[in-house]
Amino acid sequence: MVGGGPGAGIAETHRTAMRLDDKCVLIAGVFSRDSEKSRRAARQLRIDLDRVYPDYSVMAEVESKRESDRIDVAVIVTRTDSHFEIARKFLQSGIQVICDKPLCLSLTEAKELKRLAEEKELILCLTHNYSGYAMVRHAARMVRNGDLGKVCVVQAEHASGWAATLLEKQGHPQAAWRTDPVLSGDSSVLFDLGTHAHQLARFVTGLEVTEVAAEMSQIVQGRAIKDNANLLLRFSNGARGTLWASMAAIGNEHGLRIRVYGDRGSLAWHHEDPCHLRYCPLDGPQQILAQGADGLSAEAKRWTRAGLGHPEGFFESFANIYTEVAEAILAKSEGRSYVKDELGFPDASDGARGVAFVESAMRSFASGGVWTAVEAI
Amino acid sequence: MVGGGPGAGIAETHRTAMRLDDKCVLIAGVFSRDSEKSRRAARQLRIDLDRVYPDYSVMAEVESKRESDRIDVAVIVTRTDSHFEIARKFLQSGIQVICDKPLCLSLTEAKELKRLAEEKELILCLTHNYSGYAMVRHAARMVRNGDLGKVCVVQAEHASGWAATLLEKQGHPQAAWRTDPVLSGDSSVLFDLGTHAHQLARFVTGLEVTEVAAEMSQIVQGRAIKDNANLLLRFSNGARGTLWASMAAIGNEHGLRIRVYGDRGSLAWHHEDPCHLRYCPLDGPQQILAQGADGLSAEAKRWTRAGLGHPEGFFESFANIYTEVAEAILAKSEGRSYVKDELGFPDASDGARGVAFVESAMRSFASGGVWTAVEAI
Amino acid sequence: MVGGGPGAGIAETHRTAMRLDDKCVLIAGVFSRDSEKSRRAARQLRIDLDRVYPDYSVMAEVESKRESDRIDVAVIVTRTDSHFEIARKFLQSGIQVICDKPLCLSLTEAKELKRLAEEKELILCLTHNYSGYAMVRHAARMVRNGDLGKVCVVQAEHASGWAATLLEKQGHPQAAWRTDPVLSGDSSVLFDLGTHAHQLARFVTGLEVTEVAAEMSQIVQGRAIKDNANLLLRFSNGARGTLWASMAAIGNEHGLRIRVYGDRGSLAWHHEDPCHLRYCPLDGPQQILAQGADGLSAEAKRWTRAGLGHPEGFFESFANIYTEVAEAILAKSEGRSYVKDELGFPDASDGARGVAFVESAMRSFASGGVWTAVEAI
Amino acid sequence: MVGGGPGAGIAETHRTAMRLDDKCVLIAGVFSRDSEKSRRAARQLRIDLDRVYPDYSVMAEVESKRESDRIDVAVIVTRTDSHFEIARKFLQSGIQVICDKPLCLSLTEAKELKRLAEEKELILCLTHNYSGYAMVRHAARMVRNGDLGKVCVVQAEHASGWAATLLEKQGHPQAAWRTDPVLSGDSSVLFDLGTHAHQLARFVTGLEVTEVAAEMSQIVQGRAIKDNANLLLRFSNGARGTLWASMAAIGNEHGLRIRVYGDRGSLAWHHEDPCHLRYCPLDGPQQILAQGADGLSAEAKRWTRAGLGHPEGFFESFANIYTEVAEAILAKSEGRSYVKDELGFPDASDGARGVAFVESAMRSFASGGVWTAVEAI
Repeated sequence: MVGGGPGAGIAETHRTAMRLDDKCVLIAGVFSRDSEKSRRAARQLRIDLDRVYPDYSVMAEVESKRESDRIDVAVIVTRTDSHFEIARKFLQSGIQVICDKPLCLSLTEAKELKRLAEEKELILCLTHNYSGYAMVRHAARMVRNGDLGKVCVVQAEHASGWAATLLEKQGHPQAAWRTDPVLSGDSSVLFDLGTHAHQLARFVTGLEVTEVAAEMSQIVQGRAIKDNANLLLRFSNGARGTLWASMAAIGNEHGLRIRVYGDRGSLAWHHEDPCHLRYCPLDGPQQILAQGADGLSAEAKRWTRAGLGHPEGFFESFANIYTEVAEAILAKSEGRSYVKDELGFPDASDGARGVAFVESAMRSFASGGVWTAVEAI
Repeated sequence: MVGGGPGAGIAETHRTAMRLDDKCVLIAGVFSRDSEKSRRAARQLRIDLDRVYPDYSVMAEVESKRESDRIDVAVIVTRTDSHFEIARKFLQSGIQVICDKPLCLSLTEAKELKRLAEEKELILCLTHNYSGYAMVRHAARMVRNGDLGKVCVVQAEHASGWAATLLEKQGHPQAAWRTDPVLSGDSSVLFDLGTHAHQLARFVTGLEVTEVAAEMSQIVQGRAIKDNANLLLRFSNGARGTLWASMAAIGNEHGLRIRVYGDRGSLAWHHEDPCHLRYCPLDGPQQILAQGADGLSAEAKRWTRAGLGHPEGFFESFANIYTEVAEAILAKSEGRSYVKDELGFPDASDGARGVAFVESAMRSFASGGVWTAVEAI
Repeated sequence: MVGGGPGAGIAETHRTAMRLDDKCVLIAGVFSRDSEKSRRAARQLRIDLDRVYPDYSVMAEVESKRESDRIDVAVIVTRTDSHFEIARKFLQSGIQVICDKPLCLSLTEAKELKRLAEEKELILCLTHNYSGYAMVRHAARMVRNGDLGKVCVVQAEHASGWAATLLEKQGHPQAAWRTDPVLSGDSSVLFDLGTHAHQLARFVTGLEVTEVAAEMSQIVQGRAIKDNANLLLRFSNGARGTLWASMAAIGNEHGLRIRVYGDRGSLAWHHEDPCHLRYCPLDGPQQILAQGADGLSAEAKRWTRAGLGHPEGFFESFANIYTEVAEAILAKSEGRSYVKDELGFPDASDGARGVAFVESAMRSFASGGVWTAVEAI
Repeated sequence: MVGGGPGAGIAETHRTAMRLDDKCVLIAGVFSRDSEKSRRAARQLRIDLDRVYPDYSVMAEVESKRESDRIDVAVIVTRTDSHFEIARKFLQSGIQVICDKPLCLSLTEAKELKRLAEEKELILCLTHNYSGYAMVRHAARMVRNGDLGKVCVVQAEHASGWAATLLEKQGHPQAAWRTDPVLSGDSSVLFDLGTHAHQLARFVTGLEVTEVAAEMSQIVQGRAIKDNANLLLRFSNGARGTLWASMAAIGNEHGLRIRVYGDRGSLAWHHEDPCHLRYCPLDGPQQILAQGADGLSAEAKRWTRAGLGHPEGFFESFANIYTEVAEAILAKSEGRSYVKDELGFPDASDGARGVAFVESAMRSFASGGVWTAVEAI
């Protein structure tokens, strides 16, 4: 693990996700640029101090030379602007990568990571964990099965209320860098939240966003960047839609949701109630599909632990991604052929698509909202 | 009443709304172009056949000359393309008008009706009945009171699933004319549904839509017109938003809803559950405001009949509009000064705004989705 | 109409219900024991003063002697303790009756009214209006059709929060007599609210409550009567259940709901959302049945006016009862055979069943909660 | 761990819960009576085979004699009928216990375990995991804080649909022993499900059930035992309520829920949506309290990992219990005084209360439903 010292929120989520299914063990890392802090974190995590490294570069080099006990995968949970360098280094060293989202901040970099991963046949998993939810997988399966007919309209949102006040001026470190015009810029709301909605839309529908028309605005007065984005979307099959990303939608808890309308049925999923999926067939009443119920797809069953009425949530969705990667690594290590499932964990392609989407949206907005193509990757 | 013979759906709603509060009596009309059908309808409605007229023009002229018992207001429930001529005739004859929405099909006509109504100091009420719901009035009051702070984002939808199949080829008369490329054209989904969402957004927020960027598409294959529209909006105070109008969103019952986010709170209302309003203040938990509960505004109380937990719905919202017009007419007839409340029934201005909005959206779409100004009226 | 002078809440609901479908006209009445108040009410209601009577007895006698224009039915909206005398008088005079619920306060009286109505072949309709909701009718039809298999468990509630404070000491007239130990007694919560839940359970399931075990308690301190009742039920087919009646369940709006579980499926309906019905078949996901949707029963269609997504509520349910009675009266007046539908409006039998149920529950409670038979009527 | 070999559902939940917060490590066990199966399980779980024991008795004796590395606590996940012997043995050997619920099958045994644990000052935690949910803790805190005033009515349910068919005849091992008239008897539905609702009611309200009147029935035809129970409750402060336990309520997912009504407010919690709590104060609108939101109690914050809008569920609630026990053990081991919090994990007292409750309910039912005292323990 690179990053994730004391106080780093998302790293703890990654570590919990590793433990949950008992498929992954954390054995090495650089937990802070400050080596004392890094070692302190390692001690808390009961990691052998011999495998605490001064920086990611040394870690990649040393670990890549270990024999039987080298790390299977490096987990990157640093700030986004460092993802590219770190991921590239590990890939170059022949080490697989799990990287927190978004993949990086430029399409050029994203493509380079994708190219590297493919060239070296290494896994690069991006933890868009929402793609790991059992009912999101089920939704994706239903669309692939044709239960919705041709997808015509997609309404995706990640409109959270987490930064509905000037947190950045109240000592909130996450808010500080995410609203810093230099570090993050206006694209922050799209990189941080928009890419989740974009990935969810792609994952569930199997379609690509080919064009975007973007409008951005500011909700919280005094903030240095735009904190709200409303986008029109065109999809690869001709479907249309909208995407709303916001960090200041008061009263929305987490605010990730998707509604997909086809010409034979519709689906709706909302992260605040992740074990249910609303399905409306053309000829029949609305159905509430519940995780763990009889009759769901193999994908839904595969990623359900306790069964009907026993809610699984954020950590389980994250653990699903980790377990899926662990199984892929195991398959590779055993020489079994490993083919990533269409409905499997997000990878470098997904990451690059996300970056391309944000770049296109920013260009659209800069040019007054004209329809702007999203590069196919 | 002009229109509303046998089988005309919305006319029966108007008549029910008239009766509900016992403030209006139907006493004259032209119920069909076929005078025999018209008289038959009149008999069923127990209307004196002396006041069944061969056409609206005769009706306007004869009624305008009656003394004490002339009609107070003419109700127009014909197809939209005839609204202008009929409304103009009654206004010219000095008779007030209640007109089904949308007001008419061109801005020029809409302005003429508005001008006429103002010049003659006559009421021209447009039955956007959703503005009549107690909790919609309450929402509007809360925004005016500043409970949401500055409104920043407005998400409005009228995405219904009513025409999710080719009803127009299955003998459904409403669907036939609403999807006829000559009679209704691509603007149909905006005139029929979009104007409801537009009016709801304006009514609740007190803001005007000043610019629109529009995208239209088709869900039902084989349909002669676009049946889906996704719009980006800019509002008069700088707020942003989206509006989704659809006639083929499978699984959506009626699909009219609005969410308003300010910098101090947010509100959400959904027509499928019209007696509740979700309110999220910045500093506190989400609240479910219920019609009839203690502590609501005067507007909410004014338009509530039975009280907490006794649902009122579509007909009551419609009746609220009728009763409000009846009271206005009574005030005028008694020489009391009548000033339309900001939160009162929709009128010619609202109707003209709606037509301007549709025209701008159509121009935006025709020009590839560029931001297009909506004329202030 | 007997009763229903100024300020009488439920009378206005009855009058609105009469008007809604334009099948009933109010033409005579005794609106108050104070004849001046009665005449004032009549003027407001535009009723011919010749048909305002000094008391119900005179009204019954005079009206029963009128020829062509005599009233078809007398509506009784007085306080419950006077229902028996008034209803008996009209029935004895050969005039049909619509009576607000509960029918009366003793089983002996209830049976007498039932006997009279049957002997004279007169309609005695009891306005348990919740039996008039389209989706309640649909639920009843589904149970009759066997969609739930054998009904095994019934959970019924009418636990309202309307009197969660000492309203009776704050000048609230309804609360005053409903919590008066002499006028209403501990049985008040059962007569006023429990009978609605009891009727709803019977209507939906087609079963009778054969035994009851009752516990009563007090929520609001200082109240002179019990305001809460929890009952265990045994049904005629062996099903079990509970019934909760309360007038002081804080936060419950109206609080009428029912859940029915069979061995093939289950149903749930809640008055706060009356246009939807939750249906869970044994082999399949939960379905949300919506009023106005395709595929519902004839009963649901019959009592739906505007269609899918256009909410109908309290007044429409009440109007359904009135319209149904109007049609029955019309059938009788035209000499057509009239057979009350099993799923039709509540009548004297239902009323007597309700009174028997309350009496048995009170006896059970008085004897320490032992199972007590409910007389079959 | 005793029990929990291959295929034992709940053991895997316990193990996941141990790992989640990284406070517990599984190091010894008897995973099956078949020693080969036991060793196979140990290998899968990466447990040192030296610490796999032939039976719980040997395990207790050997482990109790180890020095620095002896187990801190024994986890019992066997079938209920063996809980008593195993728990007694570990307690007698000076080893603390975490036991799956219910504690045991007789009150005499339960009291003996409680006595032993107290005498030896050992922790005996009972994994009623629902008491571990952050929002359940918050509910309990609100009641203790007086936010509801005096608790007056408690409606508790654990009415699941898990065994709505004859699973026991379809090779379902859980269903087989839970519906075996010899092994489990009619009390099964109360022991398995009723005790969860009973514990939830006690935990949230801080009240004891002092009397119960019980009715039991059968939903699934052909089943050898009663699978449904409806109970009336009296609480220690005079409050009343009901408890519904069922294993065959079709369409209910898990079916655990509680509603508490006081004279100043009410609360509702439903396991299918565990991160929200409905709160209705007497003077104000209904509030939806959300896990992770600002302003919640220290208890809610303490047991929340990821924050607002990031759902936590079944495994996290279970992990909360484990982590709480781990902290208590740590405190004890460090010589810090450890006082179990009123809102802390369920223990032997809670377990004994649950058994007493079931025994009283069974006696009430056997005697025709008379009110039966529940022994205070």
